Amino acid sequence: MTLGRRGLLAAVLAATATPAAAAPADPLPSWRDGPARRAILDLIRRTTRPGPGFVPPEARVASFDNDGTLWVEQPMYPEVVFALDRLPAVVAADPSLAERPVVRAALAGDLAAVFAGGAPSLFELVAVTHAGMTEDAFLPLAEAWFRTWRHPRYARPQTALIYQPMIELLRLLRREGFATWIVTGGEQGYVRAVSRSLYDVPVERVVGSDLRAEFRLVEGRAEVLRRPTIAAIDEGPGKALGIARAIGRRPVLAFGNSDGDVEMLQYATSGSGARLGLLLRHDDAAREYAYDRESRIGRLARGLDLAPGAGWVVVSMRQDWRRVFAWEPAAA
Amino acid sequence: MTLGRRGLLAAVLAATATPAAAAPADPLPSWRDGPARRAILDLIRRTTRPGPGFVPPEARVASFDNDGTLWVEQPMYPEVVFALDRLPAVVAADPSLAERPVVRAALAGDLAAVFAGGAPSLFELVAVTHAGMTEDAFLPLAEAWFRTWRHPRYARPQTALIYQPMIELLRLLRREGFATWIVTGGEQGYVRAVSRSLYDVPVERVVGSDLRAEFRLVEGRAEVLRRPTIAAIDEGPGKALGIARAIGRRPVLAFGNSDGDVEMLQYATSGSGARLGLLLRHDDAAREYAYDRESRIGRLARGLDLAPGAGWVVVSMRQDWRRVFAWEPAAA
Repeated sequence: MTLGRRGLLAAVLAATATPAAAAPADPLPSWRDGPARRAILDLIRRTTRPGPGFVPPEARVASFDNDGTLWVEQPMYPEVVFALDRLPAVVAADPSLAERPVVRAALAGDLAAVFAGGAPSLFELVAVTHAGMTEDAFLPLAEAWFRTWRHPRYARPQTALIYQPMIELLRLLRREGFATWIVTGGEQGYVRAVSRSLYDVPVERVVGSDLRAEFRLVEGRAEVLRRPTIAAIDEGPGKALGIARAIGRRPVLAFGNSDGDVEMLQYATSGSGARLGLLLRHDDAAREYAYDRESRIGRLARGLDLAPGAGWVVVSMRQDWRRVFAWEPAAA
Repeated sequence: MTLGRRGLLAAVLAATATPAAAAPADPLPSWRDGPARRAILDLIRRTTRPGPGFVPPEARVASFDNDGTLWVEQPMYPEVVFALDRLPAVVAADPSLAERPVVRAALAGDLAAVFAGGAPSLFELVAVTHAGMTEDAFLPLAEAWFRTWRHPRYARPQTALIYQPMIELLRLLRREGFATWIVTGGEQGYVRAVSRSLYDVPVERVVGSDLRAEFRLVEGRAEVLRRPTIAAIDEGPGKALGIARAIGRRPVLAFGNSDGDVEMLQYATSGSGARLGLLLRHDDAAREYAYDRESRIGRLARGLDLAPGAGWVVVSMRQDWRRVFAWEPAAA
């Protein structure tokens, strides 16, 4: 910002001296050559270079689901683990919550009963454990959990379980002038706690499920209090609505992994001009997990049925990714 | 993007050849020297230069009300004029709407009756006239209205009735690394139709009142349909809630002009560190309008009462602005 003319020239010379450093030879080193990688590079080329598919930078929007698309969601959505971890303290503070059937089932460790209620039950559990405090107070609480919890299989924090190929894709898109958004079924504040540090996505570009909130003056200080009720579920059709409300444009590229992402892909790829819908298929039990049509978590059935007709690209974790995590060696 | 090294150097030389062009001597030429201007420049200096008040660029958020803060809202909120203009066509398409009392009053030209219902009546009028179409279809409709309607006093389109001092302030803030947001009681899509062309604010940085929406597949194409019901009123406490939801941070600077902006200012200035709340007082009947405590439109009473204790700066249009509109000659 305060570079003089001489300093600016020097910076330009340094930046252009080694073209390879400015634009790496391979922007997606963790992606194997194949239809998925080619579709991505082709979409970026068509929308950013002069030609009929050109999209002005302001309209370059890419939207990504989080659970199962940017990070591991098995064997249990991380946010539900967080909710279960918090539940005893929350119920101790407000014993009346234990009267809710889903809370009782969760406290008893009966996850089958929790899941039997479907998405509404999960969201109720999220609501009661993410509420009862101010917006400002929630953030450090979530951050603390991310520092302490370890994944049962990988023995690493959730923050280490982000997919390296997706990080490369986010970076490439931003370098090409795209705004990268996270459109998550998770509660917005929970994902915002880590969006910058994990994905380099600022909090205002995280659209998620939303708690009812209340404005209050607490000892003269204005606060926004989180209420234990879901105002909007950002899943399925809710993802398209969340995109229209928060982004105000159809994404040029949308990337998901489950049936809850179908409407986001439909909304993106129904737009005019070049568009790309992508679904990550978890078919890699060796490095991650293998699940789709029958899974309780991240079920992908309708999406697979619709993909061929809609022109969406199904990404195979096993075939399309040389590595899943940054800490793994890359395969050939 | 595709500049070679030689082209990039040439561009840098051209951009740095006249330093004066990069940073104008006076970034706020339409503002007279005085407490308001000084408070603004002081806040920007403290938050952007090294020191105890420094705010990292990512947290530099400035939020602006629209009606009466960025553009003229008298003698009637422009959006209500738009709603009244659209009403006959909307009722012709759906005659059952005429059964709503506020619609009947508006059709009869009885604005006193419309206003007697307070904000809910106005928002109902907005809802029925902004709905019944897709998100994509609404935008050109609003744009067309902005091209044709002329203000009764100025005989200019609403788009010419933006305040030049505020345009300068928005530009200065952005140059200093602030993200400038519009937080409006108006319906979000209506303000988004002109936010980029008037204020250089992209659609995703407009937070406003929100219609219920519905996802639908129309002949295989995914659409978001606007429903004639308000989901969230972005006014009063709703502005603080809208900011928490959409921006996820307390603004460093918040600028409003009516009692509907009080909670936005409270939310901004309750944050830690350097903060600034500003209220524009319309006291300039010669160049614009003079109204505050008793006005039906843009009433400012509670705000004036709270300002001294809260440390908010009341900006006098008459004293603090050399000019109101870009097409006016500047006064001394």
